Amino acid sequence: MNTTQTECRYANRVRTLRPSCVREIMKAAASRDVISFAGGLPNPRLFPVDAIAEAAARVLKDHGSAALQYSSSEGYAPLREYVAETCLRRRGIRASADDILLTSGSQQALDLVGKVFIEPGDAVLMESPAYLSAIQAFELYQPRFVPVRLNRDGLDPYLLAERLERWSPKLVYLVPNFQNPTGVSYSGENRCAIAHLLRMHDTVLVEDDPYRELRFEGEDLPPVYRYADQHAVLTGTFSKVLSPALRMGWVYTCADTLRHMVVAKQASDLCSSDLTQRILYECLTRFDLERHVAALCREYRRQRDRMLHWIRTLFPDGTRYTRPQGGMFIWVTLPGNVSAEELLTATVKRGVVFAPGRSFYPGRPELNTLRLNFTHADDVEMEKGMNILAQEIRALTG
Amino acid sequence: MNTTQTECRYANRVRTLRPSCVREIMKAAASRDVISFAGGLPNPRLFPVDAIAEAAARVLKDHGSAALQYSSSEGYAPLREYVAETCLRRRGIRASADDILLTSGSQQALDLVGKVFIEPGDAVLMESPAYLSAIQAFELYQPRFVPVRLNRDGLDPYLLAERLERWSPKLVYLVPNFQNPTGVSYSGENRCAIAHLLRMHDTVLVEDDPYRELRFEGEDLPPVYRYADQHAVLTGTFSKVLSPALRMGWVYTCADTLRHMVVAKQASDLCSSDLTQRILYECLTRFDLERHVAALCREYRRQRDRMLHWIRTLFPDGTRYTRPQGGMFIWVTLPGNVSAEELLTATVKRGVVFAPGRSFYPGRPELNTLRLNFTHADDVEMEKGMNILAQEIRALTG
Repeated sequence: MNTTQTECRYANRVRTLRPSCVREIMKAAASRDVISFAGGLPNPRLFPVDAIAEAAARVLKDHGSAALQYSSSEGYAPLREYVAETCLRRRGIRASADDILLTSGSQQALDLVGKVFIEPGDAVLMESPAYLSAIQAFELYQPRFVPVRLNRDGLDPYLLAERLERWSPKLVYLVPNFQNPTGVSYSGENRCAIAHLLRMHDTVLVEDDPYRELRFEGEDLPPVYRYADQHAVLTGTFSKVLSPALRMGWVYTCADTLRHMVVAKQASDLCSSDLTQRILYECLTRFDLERHVAALCREYRRQRDRMLHWIRTLFPDGTRYTRPQGGMFIWVTLPGNVSAEELLTATVKRGVVFAPGRSFYPGRPELNTLRLNFTHADDVEMEKGMNILAQEIRALTG
Repeated sequence: MNTTQTECRYANRVRTLRPSCVREIMKAAASRDVISFAGGLPNPRLFPVDAIAEAAARVLKDHGSAALQYSSSEGYAPLREYVAETCLRRRGIRASADDILLTSGSQQALDLVGKVFIEPGDAVLMESPAYLSAIQAFELYQPRFVPVRLNRDGLDPYLLAERLERWSPKLVYLVPNFQNPTGVSYSGENRCAIAHLLRMHDTVLVEDDPYRELRFEGEDLPPVYRYADQHAVLTGTFSKVLSPALRMGWVYTCADTLRHMVVAKQASDLCSSDLTQRILYECLTRFDLERHVAALCREYRRQRDRMLHWIRTLFPDGTRYTRPQGGMFIWVTLPGNVSAEELLTATVKRGVVFAPGRSFYPGRPELNTLRLNFTHADDVEMEKGMNILAQEIRALTG
């Protein structure tokens, strides 16, 4: 590449652009034989490879060139209808295909939310800790993050009330089911309390629901959206129940917001892949998804239990950790002042990676926290990796 | 969906968000039996359906679950290497895989350019007329567009010099090969002259090269980038030579800019589909792409000639039009004050659509212009559609 004549003039927002620590760790890990608790990776041994291969073959045989052309920015109509009829109905919401926008993973939904709503300086209320890639997506639009502490049963309502009053946030971003990074699930009461508070403020609820299908304990709870009377954007994904490589998420919102988001999607990537949309739809109609999800939940529950077992038996006294009823993550708080980043430096050398807590905080970080993914490593790797983690934690706690 | 309590507070940039007229026209057209000269759609009869089906089957058989997981934001490494070794080399550029970012179509590259470079109010120099979706992508970042007239052999160098001097644009966006919407290809001399002018200014060259492979007359010319000594971003795509549904474009730029764009991509959609990236790579290595592109060029040349024939024989005297040496579009300037939008209103009723010129102008539009795509309609449709167009033009010219 030619050299830059003078200092290149990037936009100011580039200064706040932070690479995802998790994606950087995973990139480093990908090149070697590393045990990873870092990413939010589904268990690859459970991907329905044959069903997807069959669906791909069938789509290309039956639809031919129609599956290889540019498609509508809104997304493949039958798949939008499936989302409305199945994904939304399961959440207790009546919707039609016209209320749905399909996105390149639910990550794109977050970028489109940023594009459509966030002005520089706008207050955006976030859980603390929060989903790393939501922080990253919104940060490009230069908001001011307002963190609210996440408790074991959801968002702290007193803090929420105070923050809403004081900051009048434009958006409130929540992951009420098996939150990333903590695994916390909001209780029914907490959902009601939050909805009640939100109703009193002119703020947009952005509810991100990627893990709902992965509940292996307890009862399904309605989205906060169902209790609220709020301008809202609800988003979900097929990445966790089928495959992230289909890059297919969805957005449900009101007509005005949907219209703006569709145009923002046109500007961002014109349209999603018609091929993968049709493959996904073919899978959904011919493959027993419910049975597949039930198998996922059984296995993830077992993997969670194993990881909890290793934490309980190997980690030092004073370690605190969540016990998620679903999803993919356990959140660990180390005793004393042990720095998770120092810990990572030590474990990387021994071939084990995880996500230190720092990057998940929209405000002041708690440095003795970390996120462990329990769905990716197999049993042998998990045992070995957790032993190494425990040894290095003990080395640091002295 | 719940109703909005009070007026929803969208970001200011939403006010400038304009839906793509072309995508709106195509959406309307999709629902009925319409002859479309509107989109930039490849000829669907030439999609290599069997090759893509074979590639998909092989990828899922050989790579299995590895093809269904999250992947790196930079893109599938072998495909990045292919882009460096083949796509860049053909353009006279020596590059390595590390210099390449794969994007969800080259449209995403434009969005990432906007994210990384454009501050509100920044001057962005555009061809006039310009690629509609580049206008749309950049507009989200609220630049001030500075148009420079496009002549038959490229950008007007006197106007370019004056605009560079007066506006010090941060970016200069060019499509030198078979430009969208005009089909104009910059001459070698014009490329040199432009590069010479750019060298004297601290501006970023964004060169968009989606149609290069679709040359059916004349000699390949190097990108303007090759003559410039400029901070630059070069982008291309596989949408025109294989299939838009693979949603695969690429960016070549310097390490600093690439790093920022990778993080911006993380924030935008995490990563592209590993499945479609591997399918594409499998196609590229096993399928005779050169022979396929040669067949595409033969057919597109024939289709161009037919459309030129209908324009020449059916359209009224005083109609001006380009004679592209490649690509997918002819640009027509109607005699007198005929409004292309009025024309569209008339032809839609008779089942024929095209893209009126208005939306392609970053500055003051010329309303008697229109873009005709010659690659999508088959011969029978083209003859019928061009006759209807000609009749309605004559009706409007009186």
